[in-house]
Amino acid sequence: MKQTGKLYLIPNSLGSDDLNAILPQENFNIIKNIQTFIVENLRTARRFLSKAGHSGNIDKLDFFILNEHTNTNELSDYLETIKQGKDIGLLSDAGVPCVADPGADIVSMAQNQGIQVVPLVGPSSILMGLMASGFNGQNFAFVGYLPREQSERNKRIKELETRVYKEEQTQLFIETPYRNNQMFESLLGQCNPETKVCVACEISLETEYIVTHKVKDWKKLKTKIDLKKRNTLFLIYK
Amino acid sequence: MKQTGKLYLIPNSLGSDDLNAILPQENFNIIKNIQTFIVENLRTARRFLSKAGHSGNIDKLDFFILNEHTNTNELSDYLETIKQGKDIGLLSDAGVPCVADPGADIVSMAQNQGIQVVPLVGPSSILMGLMASGFNGQNFAFVGYLPREQSERNKRIKELETRVYKEEQTQLFIETPYRNNQMFESLLGQCNPETKVCVACEISLETEYIVTHKVKDWKKLKTKIDLKKRNTLFLIYK
Repeated sequence: MKQTGKLYLIPNSLGSDDLNAILPQENFNIIKNIQTFIVENLRTARRFLSKAGHSGNIDKLDFFILNEHTNTNELSDYLETIKQGKDIGLLSDAGVPCVADPGADIVSMAQNQGIQVVPLVGPSSILMGLMASGFNGQNFAFVGYLPREQSERNKRIKELETRVYKEEQTQLFIETPYRNNQMFESLLGQCNPETKVCVACEISLETEYIVTHKVKDWKKLKTKIDLKKRNTLFLIYK
Repeated sequence: MKQTGKLYLIPNSLGSDDLNAILPQENFNIIKNIQTFIVENLRTARRFLSKAGHSGNIDKLDFFILNEHTNTNELSDYLETIKQGKDIGLLSDAGVPCVADPGADIVSMAQNQGIQVVPLVGPSSILMGLMASGFNGQNFAFVGYLPREQSERNKRIKELETRVYKEEQTQLFIETPYRNNQMFESLLGQCNPETKVCVACEISLETEYIVTHKVKDWKKLKTKIDLKKRNTLFLIYK
């Protein structure tokens, strides 16, 4: 009987080109031995695999696409390769798979089927932003996107701020990059002047900016930061 | 005027000896250029730095100790070195600094003083356990330790399970390793039979074990897993 393969969860960079700066050597060794990948975007995946040392034979690899158009039945087929004894790599477009990123459904399916899932080390803006914020890392929640509509969003910000004070839980969230400035303004408008806001921007890039101030101090700053189109994680704590 | 140094947040392994397997090459380059470290345990730190390429000159390095005996006034002195233009490394005993790990206070102080804080990539059991669980990674909370006392702990488990169903938020928590089996029994006893429990054990080690089942299926397993003294992250989701 053939041994079952494994599902490797393979992080990508957060936008930087130097993979050695943000991925362990062992990831490249593992990647080189995998022939089948589940990817979000074929072009991004090929570029990553080429840089990661799969150059020369990219065309011989098998790719399955996992994005918002993939239906659940297809996912199940993807795992057949593993049952035939081959390893599969689930590759993120940016950062680590399954955390603020697609992939959890296929991992869940693999877990259901008793397939071994192996997470590899890589950069996560959530984790790195939390580390550098100075906020509580013993108790924290990442809640994804806040509502778009302004009054709904303001209400949600107040809810999250309540949880900061009541549970001492750091709250982390993101916004679509072109609406980051509005989100930042909403935060400064809604939160208590004493609440701390950390803006963690373009983590691991040359332009990395991770700065924490109280709301009242952000308001006093003369030069306003421009977060438009910059990948940003927002964190609040007391 | 001298340029201010930076505070680097340096992850350690989760117990494995092969640092290349879990840390990017760039971390070693950065570490070699740092002469002053804030560490939890001097012996663990020296061993790590030696393996990371600081061998031969460990005795010339400066160490500050950061543990439960360190008082806040001392922390402030630690950062003086940075103001003199030297970089400092905040080094974790295991995993990444400041996340389920000491260090957030000194990072907070650095942020207050306008010091640049640079998080490096490394293994985090929280992040890797979440990735491999198959649970919701768009909304999750790590809540640290649950109460020791049984009725309090049971109540807390029910609270967390409520949040799973009401907010679709994955809940992650830990226990002192010698009490892991009791925690696991409490989870199986308190949670709904349909609730999923992921046990993520000894992540990144040879003995790594990350398995998700519904409560009712965990109860049916004939061979019971023994989690005693094994570093374990518990996750619940629906």
